[in-house]
Amino acid sequence: MRTLQVLADLQSAVRSARCAGSSIGLVPTMGYLHQGHLTLVERARAECDLVVMSIFVNPTQFGPQEDFVLYPRDLERDRYLAAEGGVDVLFVPDVDTMYLGGSGEQQVWVEPGSLADHLCGASRPNHFRGVATVVAKLFNMVQPDRAYFGQKDAQQAVIIGRMARDLSFPIEVRVIATVRESDGLALSSRNVYLRAGERQQAVALSTALERGRKAIEHGERDPRKVEQQVLGHLSESAPEADIDYVTVADLNSAKPLERIRAGNVLVALAVFFDRTRLIDNIIVRVDSAALQTDEKAAAQR
Amino acid sequence: MRTLQVLADLQSAVRSARCAGSSIGLVPTMGYLHQGHLTLVERARAECDLVVMSIFVNPTQFGPQEDFVLYPRDLERDRYLAAEGGVDVLFVPDVDTMYLGGSGEQQVWVEPGSLADHLCGASRPNHFRGVATVVAKLFNMVQPDRAYFGQKDAQQAVIIGRMARDLSFPIEVRVIATVRESDGLALSSRNVYLRAGERQQAVALSTALERGRKAIEHGERDPRKVEQQVLGHLSESAPEADIDYVTVADLNSAKPLERIRAGNVLVALAVFFDRTRLIDNIIVRVDSAALQTDEKAAAQR
Repeated sequence: MRTLQVLADLQSAVRSARCAGSSIGLVPTMGYLHQGHLTLVERARAECDLVVMSIFVNPTQFGPQEDFVLYPRDLERDRYLAAEGGVDVLFVPDVDTMYLGGSGEQQVWVEPGSLADHLCGASRPNHFRGVATVVAKLFNMVQPDRAYFGQKDAQQAVIIGRMARDLSFPIEVRVIATVRESDGLALSSRNVYLRAGERQQAVALSTALERGRKAIEHGERDPRKVEQQVLGHLSESAPEADIDYVTVADLNSAKPLERIRAGNVLVALAVFFDRTRLIDNIIVRVDSAALQTDEKAAAQR
Repeated sequence: MRTLQVLADLQSAVRSARCAGSSIGLVPTMGYLHQGHLTLVERARAECDLVVMSIFVNPTQFGPQEDFVLYPRDLERDRYLAAEGGVDVLFVPDVDTMYLGGSGEQQVWVEPGSLADHLCGASRPNHFRGVATVVAKLFNMVQPDRAYFGQKDAQQAVIIGRMARDLSFPIEVRVIATVRESDGLALSSRNVYLRAGERQQAVALSTALERGRKAIEHGERDPRKVEQQVLGHLSESAPEADIDYVTVADLNSAKPLERIRAGNVLVALAVFFDRTRLIDNIIVRVDSAALQTDEKAAAQR
């Protein structure tokens, strides 16, 4: 594995691979790698000839009160894990490479519009503008054929997929299922912040989402009632969690649903344990046959 | 010259050229070609192995009251001129190629921020968002090494240059001097709309700008006074012109100057003749030596 800091080196590595007929996969990360990232690498490895991973803790996606400075970093460990995982090129740019003149100089942004109005976007103003912009930069720097993102960051996946389409990037955006601990907690670099008691309670994020899934599968079609069941479970099982949101949303628009209909329904939540913000989500597939049966059953009640 | 409508055809033409070691130049246009466009082609021809021109009248950069429908179009003439001018690949996408599902479906935009606050941006809300977004799309579709724009669209040139930098496009943006008729009128596809009397008066755009240049060269350092001289000449010599703006601005930020200092000063204007909107501008280089002399002279007065 080659570790590159200089943009010109990255570009020449990628260009010569491309012109030799190789397909390029990009796995953008903020480092502090875990099995979730490595699963993205695995998938990229299976589908692409050259696997590029970027590690960059992007200042413009953190709010002024957020954990940019404290975000966990461990480049030596990351290099080891990336190499073991099958990364060919590890790109670790500094801030001045990603933002000429510094991130305060950025004037032209990629704006996700109303896709950022709800869920995490509602409580993290400018977060997704920062994400979309830095990913656009990485797309332009690497010009990959495919790029890999985790489903855990559901709204990010929606926005990046839409950005690729709306800005005509010739890049396939792949969204890969969330990797979880054996007790169900979604892997996150931020889990390292959790104290023991918080870690135990954090299991409730995924069990609460499963409550939501069951409610929908049992025919509940009112999103607010599904959210109440998820909230109820959370406050019972994770009393220390400060709940940011629990929302049943449309998977394509990241907008709260008024009514659950056939299609992919996103059940998403965010909580704080002290200053540690955790997110998780599930996708529930509601098919139109199930919907008809449910509505018939509802009519018969 | 090959004329291509299908994106995949364009991409395969460009890819094979690139991997054969050719450099790619892109000249994005809205068609109805004139010598200004052909001068961009000439420059691209001199600097690049493969010259791609796009012709696309972009709906998202026109306001609802503007001339999208009436914008002049003549593809047969354009094809002839482009081929004669040395274009290798003419890309003429339809709206659905540029905007999947139609331009109303666009959700993620490239936003130029405060670079669009003044000059044309002030009277054409969302115009530069549309321009930046469609150019980003063309950059992604063609992935050229260099792209060519005319200085006549001064604020567009500022925004595209900044976009390339801020979104890390690996593309050199070249801005080429405005081409003028022998009487000084800047070439524009919209000149065809002018009635005879308007056409005569339109000469005043460039002569008024030259007044501004003289005022600065003679030591005027108050931008408002320079603007007044330009305005005075315009209203005298083009009584039918409805003036949108005359602004002395910083060339890098497209912001009105408070005081003229050393550097590149943009003197820009826009006027309407009936419903035809014309723009023009000049760049005046003010060097610090000239400035010192002027200030000494001012102090002695």
